[in-house]
Amino acid sequence: MKSKLLLALVSITVAGTAAAQAEWMGLPPLYVTMAPAGTAAARVKPEDAIKAANAIQVIANSGMGALNLPGTHKGTGWEKTRVRPGFFTNRDWVNKAAMAFTKEANEMAKVAGAGHPAATKEQLGKLSAPCKGCHDDFRIKD
Amino acid sequence: MKSKLLLALVSITVAGTAAAQAEWMGLPPLYVTMAPAGTAAARVKPEDAIKAANAIQVIANSGMGALNLPGTHKGTGWEKTRVRPGFFTNRDWVNKAAMAFTKEANEMAKVAGAGHPAATKEQLGKLSAPCKGCHDDFRIKD
Repeated sequence: MKSKLLLALVSITVAGTAAAQAEWMGLPPLYVTMAPAGTAAARVKPEDAIKAANAIQVIANSGMGALNLPGTHKGTGWEKTRVRPGFFTNRDWVNKAAMAFTKEANEMAKVAGAGHPAATKEQLGKLSAPCKGCHDDFRIKD
Repeated sequence: MKSKLLLALVSITVAGTAAAQAEWMGLPPLYVTMAPAGTAAARVKPEDAIKAANAIQVIANSGMGALNLPGTHKGTGWEKTRVRPGFFTNRDWVNKAAMAFTKEANEMAKVAGAGHPAATKEQLGKLSAPCKGCHDDFRIKD
């Protein structure tokens, strides 16, 4: 336990050097994985990548499925819904994507926390896949 | 502590009676407070209201601000961003709304957990206000 913590601290320190900073700059903000705001223009600092990864991990484990009750696609609230009715009838598909999202988000928090930009970028791809899959199939486009 | 827990359990039991169930049915899903899927058509059960309130509380306390780095509005990822540039230049306004959101989300988890539909509905209004305020000003409409 103690050696793992030490390793993480050493890794973060290494990531803080100028060379590692430059490497991190090639990493797009993690916001792309959670919300419709993908960007390759802006770049993140290591500490921001860790904060973002931690936030996504918390959200992925929040039980947010409780916010998507059947029938909410018929909503007439203060904003139009962007969820397709199929979201509520393809539960197996949706549950599989949700589980993959949680798994990859947990892994992302570990990888980003360890301070390795290349591994973080690779994990970002794995984390994006279940997000994009579900959005492509069940989110109404603008 | 013990008496508070007992009170909460008694309240939930009372909410489980047929009459209280009917009262809860007038409560719109809490999804309206978090995402663009407001609905007055579908109605929630008390246990679903509690789960949703808990999820929103976790999300509100997740540090999700880390996902909105300056520059993300220039993004060209797999979905167009819906955040306006003003989100990044009106930090005082945004921070105030974020703090109000967290405060009301914490209160909502308490109120929903206590099993009082009328109070939960009232708290839903207070929780919706900072959501709607920020969306109205900084979210690009369809």
